[in-house]
Amino acid sequence: ALAAPAIAQTTDKIQWRCTSSFPQSLDTIYGGATDLATYVREATDGAFDIQVFAAGEIVPGLQAADAVQNGTVEMCHTASYYYVGKSPTWALGGVIPFGLDQRGMNAWLYYGDGMNLLNTFYNKQGLQYLPAGNTGTQMGGWFRNEINSLADMNGLKMRIAGLAGRIMERIGVVPQQIAGGDIYPSLERGTIDAAEWIGPYDDEKLGFYQVAPYYYYPGWWEGNLTLCSFINKDAWDGLPPAYQSLLQTAARAANVEMMAEYDYKNPTALRSLAGKGAQLRAFPQDVLDASYEAGMALYDELASDPEWKTIYDSMMAFEVDHFLWTQVAESTYKNFMMDKQRNNLLPGQKTGGGN
Amino acid sequence: ALAAPAIAQTTDKIQWRCTSSFPQSLDTIYGGATDLATYVREATDGAFDIQVFAAGEIVPGLQAADAVQNGTVEMCHTASYYYVGKSPTWALGGVIPFGLDQRGMNAWLYYGDGMNLLNTFYNKQGLQYLPAGNTGTQMGGWFRNEINSLADMNGLKMRIAGLAGRIMERIGVVPQQIAGGDIYPSLERGTIDAAEWIGPYDDEKLGFYQVAPYYYYPGWWEGNLTLCSFINKDAWDGLPPAYQSLLQTAARAANVEMMAEYDYKNPTALRSLAGKGAQLRAFPQDVLDASYEAGMALYDELASDPEWKTIYDSMMAFEVDHFLWTQVAESTYKNFMMDKQRNNLLPGQKTGGGN
Repeated sequence: ALAAPAIAQTTDKIQWRCTSSFPQSLDTIYGGATDLATYVREATDGAFDIQVFAAGEIVPGLQAADAVQNGTVEMCHTASYYYVGKSPTWALGGVIPFGLDQRGMNAWLYYGDGMNLLNTFYNKQGLQYLPAGNTGTQMGGWFRNEINSLADMNGLKMRIAGLAGRIMERIGVVPQQIAGGDIYPSLERGTIDAAEWIGPYDDEKLGFYQVAPYYYYPGWWEGNLTLCSFINKDAWDGLPPAYQSLLQTAARAANVEMMAEYDYKNPTALRSLAGKGAQLRAFPQDVLDASYEAGMALYDELASDPEWKTIYDSMMAFEVDHFLWTQVAESTYKNFMMDKQRNNLLPGQKTGGGN
Repeated sequence: ALAAPAIAQTTDKIQWRCTSSFPQSLDTIYGGATDLATYVREATDGAFDIQVFAAGEIVPGLQAADAVQNGTVEMCHTASYYYVGKSPTWALGGVIPFGLDQRGMNAWLYYGDGMNLLNTFYNKQGLQYLPAGNTGTQMGGWFRNEINSLADMNGLKMRIAGLAGRIMERIGVVPQQIAGGDIYPSLERGTIDAAEWIGPYDDEKLGFYQVAPYYYYPGWWEGNLTLCSFINKDAWDGLPPAYQSLLQTAARAANVEMMAEYDYKNPTALRSLAGKGAQLRAFPQDVLDASYEAGMALYDELASDPEWKTIYDSMMAFEVDHFLWTQVAESTYKNFMMDKQRNNLLPGQKTGGGN
């Protein structure tokens, strides 16, 4: 008596539209939405059909969540920190400066209180939140001139937004909000001195190395970036339970897929960029330390917002645990293997496969 | 004309049995199979129903793949290196000593040649391979006495199997094959001196800290461990395409879920173990270096096996790239954050949440 109506539910034909915040040219990050849609379409033989639209096709990339809230589309694929203008709390579903890395974020989201706390917040905005992709730790961006100490950051005009921009401002940087397509000419003309983007694979496409050759790491404002789908709450609530479950499963799959794709493509792009003259540099310690202090001061101020504080405190409590555990087995193993890599002692380097 | 039969296909009722290599008490690793089954069952409203059996319920844990090969069950959830007795090549779907870490393995599997090469091999064994879980870098195990240098490893009777055991043998260790349940009494009686298991969360349950308090890291033989499902090839080929796609999606989701669960549970267990007297120790550098040399010598010998060599060479070529890229943004960010953690400077430590 139960099985028949349940199966009938699943085969309801459902057509949704998903607006991405990204152009198709950023194939890895845009691919998070198409991967998710493909998994859902294939598993249902096309009965649940999500059509993906690139940024600008329906609404501009930075209005993707708004389009879901007002019902223009059923869902989007975006980065939650694009919407910090509404409230800083929005950023917590993506990443905050000096936040968790990719493994830590997934652990907190899926097994800590992350998903529940975030959905308590986003539900109030009329949205259901599903993590669906990650870039890993991003690069710190492209600089026209070398940064030798904190003093060199002073007065620097840098394309950087959101909470990271507010922190940069406190260490003397003049943050600029510039759309992706305008970064290259701005760097070329010198109307800006630096710009952050994503990582080697995406950055190479935009050619920044030609006009701002110093390539800094790490992007301390994006220790990971969790991409997500926001789903219109009414549309979510109206889905049959089977499709709700499938969407969650597909989003988890898209999450691991995007990370794997970046991890596969970034090393090749990094070598290619180095071959084209990009100058790889670590941020000086005093830049990192000053940024950290400025970040902590900002977070002290944000604690007056109870919505922020509830979620932030949970994330930060787990961050302590995560960076404790990371330094035991994971980091010591990576350190050992990275040392072999630098000394050309990996098996792939003996047979001519290495750098 | 196309949609109706396709949807009819999806709602075919299919019942499978999945035998796990693990007991229910190892809830995280056993949970990889039940997560996968749940995702599939929910997405199909129960039409594709995979029932999971713990090790020993149908066949012993180390015969899970055999049970799939001979058609006793349609699928299993296991670690591929349990079957190195058949051929060392089997290990490559799980992990090999000094191999990739979790992010690297996923990148190679999903975007490199990993999945294709492995399935070319496993298909010949009558199996379809699907990655479905990860433990991350494991711990190096429990030792009754402190290891201060390579000399202390000489003659040590250690519970460790497979390729790792063969490498340990070359540095003077006497490897022992002992089932999980027999480790504790063997350590207690001193019939063995050391034993490797998984990591803090699983290890704490077995109580090894009471009889072998020195807890070493990293487990260089398991920089990651990819758990997998093997599916009987005929059963796989007979699935409707929608269910093949759904199984792959569910396996990806189980992969990210298990890693998140271990990352969430291990830090708490690590603190708990330390509180109970476990003595955390890094392997001395000469132990790691001698093991590495012994490993490379073993791999030189295994290169005469063409099935091994094809897959191994592909994995090792990517390993060079992976540990290059890892040392740029990811590791420098983690290092910065781990330093803050050690110095009690993380936000969660200010508010009394940390150690």
